[in-house]
Amino acid sequence: MQMTAREIARLLNGTTEGNPDVVITRPSSIEEGGAGTLTFLADAKYLPHLYTTTAAAVLVDEDFRAEKPVSATLIRVKNVRVAVATLLQQFSAQSNRVSGVSPQAHIDAQAKTGENTAVGHFAVIEAGAQIGENCVLHPQVFVGRNVKIGDNCTLHSGVKIYADCIIGNNVILHANAVVGSDGFGFAPQADGTFKKIPQVGNVIIEDDVEVGANTVIDRAALDATIIRRGAKLDNLIQIAHNVEIGENTVIAAQAGIAGSTKIGKNNQIGGQVGIVGHISTADGVRIQAQSGVNRKIKEEGKAVYGSPAMAYNDFLRAFSIFKKLPEVEKRLRKLEE
Amino acid sequence: MQMTAREIARLLNGTTEGNPDVVITRPSSIEEGGAGTLTFLADAKYLPHLYTTTAAAVLVDEDFRAEKPVSATLIRVKNVRVAVATLLQQFSAQSNRVSGVSPQAHIDAQAKTGENTAVGHFAVIEAGAQIGENCVLHPQVFVGRNVKIGDNCTLHSGVKIYADCIIGNNVILHANAVVGSDGFGFAPQADGTFKKIPQVGNVIIEDDVEVGANTVIDRAALDATIIRRGAKLDNLIQIAHNVEIGENTVIAAQAGIAGSTKIGKNNQIGGQVGIVGHISTADGVRIQAQSGVNRKIKEEGKAVYGSPAMAYNDFLRAFSIFKKLPEVEKRLRKLEE
Amino acid sequence: MQMTAREIARLLNGTTEGNPDVVITRPSSIEEGGAGTLTFLADAKYLPHLYTTTAAAVLVDEDFRAEKPVSATLIRVKNVRVAVATLLQQFSAQSNRVSGVSPQAHIDAQAKTGENTAVGHFAVIEAGAQIGENCVLHPQVFVGRNVKIGDNCTLHSGVKIYADCIIGNNVILHANAVVGSDGFGFAPQADGTFKKIPQVGNVIIEDDVEVGANTVIDRAALDATIIRRGAKLDNLIQIAHNVEIGENTVIAAQAGIAGSTKIGKNNQIGGQVGIVGHISTADGVRIQAQSGVNRKIKEEGKAVYGSPAMAYNDFLRAFSIFKKLPEVEKRLRKLEE
Repeated sequence: MQMTAREIARLLNGTTEGNPDVVITRPSSIEEGGAGTLTFLADAKYLPHLYTTTAAAVLVDEDFRAEKPVSATLIRVKNVRVAVATLLQQFSAQSNRVSGVSPQAHIDAQAKTGENTAVGHFAVIEAGAQIGENCVLHPQVFVGRNVKIGDNCTLHSGVKIYADCIIGNNVILHANAVVGSDGFGFAPQADGTFKKIPQVGNVIIEDDVEVGANTVIDRAALDATIIRRGAKLDNLIQIAHNVEIGENTVIAAQAGIAGSTKIGKNNQIGGQVGIVGHISTADGVRIQAQSGVNRKIKEEGKAVYGSPAMAYNDFLRAFSIFKKLPEVEKRLRKLEE
Repeated sequence: MQMTAREIARLLNGTTEGNPDVVITRPSSIEEGGAGTLTFLADAKYLPHLYTTTAAAVLVDEDFRAEKPVSATLIRVKNVRVAVATLLQQFSAQSNRVSGVSPQAHIDAQAKTGENTAVGHFAVIEAGAQIGENCVLHPQVFVGRNVKIGDNCTLHSGVKIYADCIIGNNVILHANAVVGSDGFGFAPQADGTFKKIPQVGNVIIEDDVEVGANTVIDRAALDATIIRRGAKLDNLIQIAHNVEIGENTVIAAQAGIAGSTKIGKNNQIGGQVGIVGHISTADGVRIQAQSGVNRKIKEEGKAVYGSPAMAYNDFLRAFSIFKKLPEVEKRLRKLEE
Repeated sequence: MQMTAREIARLLNGTTEGNPDVVITRPSSIEEGGAGTLTFLADAKYLPHLYTTTAAAVLVDEDFRAEKPVSATLIRVKNVRVAVATLLQQFSAQSNRVSGVSPQAHIDAQAKTGENTAVGHFAVIEAGAQIGENCVLHPQVFVGRNVKIGDNCTLHSGVKIYADCIIGNNVILHANAVVGSDGFGFAPQADGTFKKIPQVGNVIIEDDVEVGANTVIDRAALDATIIRRGAKLDNLIQIAHNVEIGENTVIAAQAGIAGSTKIGKNNQIGGQVGIVGHISTADGVRIQAQSGVNRKIKEEGKAVYGSPAMAYNDFLRAFSIFKKLPEVEKRLRKLEE
């Protein structure tokens, strides 16, 4: 982005003090600052940084009075926190804007895109696909045959959606995420080889879901792999065929969930967690990072840890003894003697 | 897909009962059903679902007699299981079809593609590459210089194959998989920096291999990283330089195999398994999910578990005591007293 | 590549013995060999292979005298090791060459690319982006708005760089790597849903960094996620928002580092390691593969292992007892009796 302090003040209904023409290119924290940055003072404990910051401009409350000279331009606003939220949305929107439909995109004659939907260069939208309004498809996105996408979705560069998948409204898919690849299904043959089982289901992603970069969500063998409304998936996650992720469940990076498992609502699943296939978890379950869940979790709100996973506190207690096992064994040997 | 019940019946040498003009857009299980779905009754225990299913059509054996009214159109066929297999292949093929060579693809004048090979929009085939017959390259695929690809291969959208790699027949590579990236080889220098060791080998993928989405197979430093005939790799797997994966070995998602390790035939490697470099495994070895294998496995058919991995049953026994370590330690303390 | 033995000898200031017209297409080790390969004899212990190798040509020292007939063409050079290094660079450069700017790339009128920088087909460079000299952008790369890239960088096919990120000189990014995707930041709401926190920082990658295929580096919420000079990241790694990776730190495949963690210089982080957020590690720390680091490591050069991680040797000692826990428990039971 490129805005002067004056333009930012105008946007926020604020006023400037100091050079109004200083150019802002990015936001920063008040400790970091640096040329071209805009920062903010929302908490009195950061006040000392105000007098040393190298930021170009600082948002302060309109009645703030500095006790020492400040080199940065001050932008006075009614409420710093509200102003910051407004600005961050603005910065973020600017970075992600794509406008219009690129003449270098390939949109099949039998595909539909809604009003105000942007399509970046070298994106491909296949026959039968339907995309709603106000979506942004960044360059090099692939949308397969008969895919349905709702309104206000953002597909970052390199996202690939296989045929027949269905995506709701307000969904964000980050770069190089894959939706609808074949589930890992093979029938063992007598001679030791494996025969592919056709994967003819699809993936359904409901509203308000965010999917991280390079995450993969496989299509179902039959029926659908489902990501329910409001779920948030981080980067490099594996969602196998016929899995269902409950509403508002949050999954950290590099976790993997094997086939046909049903995750409840509002689960919190840590990074690098593995969950076996054909089980389920209750609502509100929390799974500590790197845990390996190999059986159904029936109890709502349960916290688990370890590989294989057990109750969170049981793991901590067992692990505290594990750490001193050599000493425990020595005590045993002493008794034996 | 879009077919009427009548068209499906004709394809399967069957007959319809009920509305033959109902339109089928996707297959489903009999429990799920839904408008536009086709399902099947292959096992008597699912019979009750037949009378309640919302599917548009159901495949049944030709001599099947319903005891209650069925709202779905019935399609009577000689053998339901055979008909299902035929149809799934058909559905699957339709979803993945790309026809002809896109005028928006870039195929170097010094590259060759065989008869009936389709090339999608914005795909790139570099000089010296040779691709066989009946292949499907989906949009945005990259095939580097001098890459050789056999017949009947499918490269899904976003697959990237670096120069000089060799791929056999009937190979499927899923979206955004990478083949032939540089192995991770650096020579430590006296000043703490690292100097890149050129990685000038390649990757060889033999016939009938399937590679999952976002999986990475690095090229060898010298010689080749090899994936033997019939091996199946799931998503997000790491195969390091100079690794060899044996015939018909199956590897689940997010597993990683470090440099120069040789995996035997018909191994079954679980999700998120890690295997160190410069070791080997015998044929038929099974490695439980999340295990960490740090030494050679010589015994055929051995099952291992844990990190570091040990014999499967030994791990289970040790872990069963681990879970009650606090109690074990209490018993010890009591004896001491 | 395609060169005759004579051309290679000329390049290396060497001489040929045997057929100088044999065509070389790739390098190999002396054990592997094969038609069209070039190999080398740099260590006397490999001498027996010289007489049996099927390689087309072998580099040998200029004063080497064979004791038996050799079928391969010999290329005599002053110093075999130096010649190999020269050749490997040459082979590697040939495989990766892209020349000129493709007319099928999309470079915004407000973007700049330096002299001798190549841009492959269907690559996209957005407005405000600045790319230095002697860079190679392979096909289908995406460079977002206002991204800055230094000199001598290589971006392999499918690399995606979001807006505003900054990349130094001599940086290599492998295929489908993602730089600058949104950090995983959400504010929990009273109704159980999550509200996205705009991620408006960026990613800064300093000079001499290499990033593996399908690795993801998220942009900071504010400020920057930073990869310091000389760091080497393998494939499928997750770097979360606001992380900092120290100079010359090496990270193996599939490791993940959670938000705001600062990794020291010259760390060695094994494959599949997980590190929690908001901690730091000292310089020279070594973390064993699959470990889970959940607290700050203050001691320079410390080695850790386990999940959760502890001192390397402590883990080995504790694990050695873990393996025999069933026997330990039996001994305890015997004492109790």
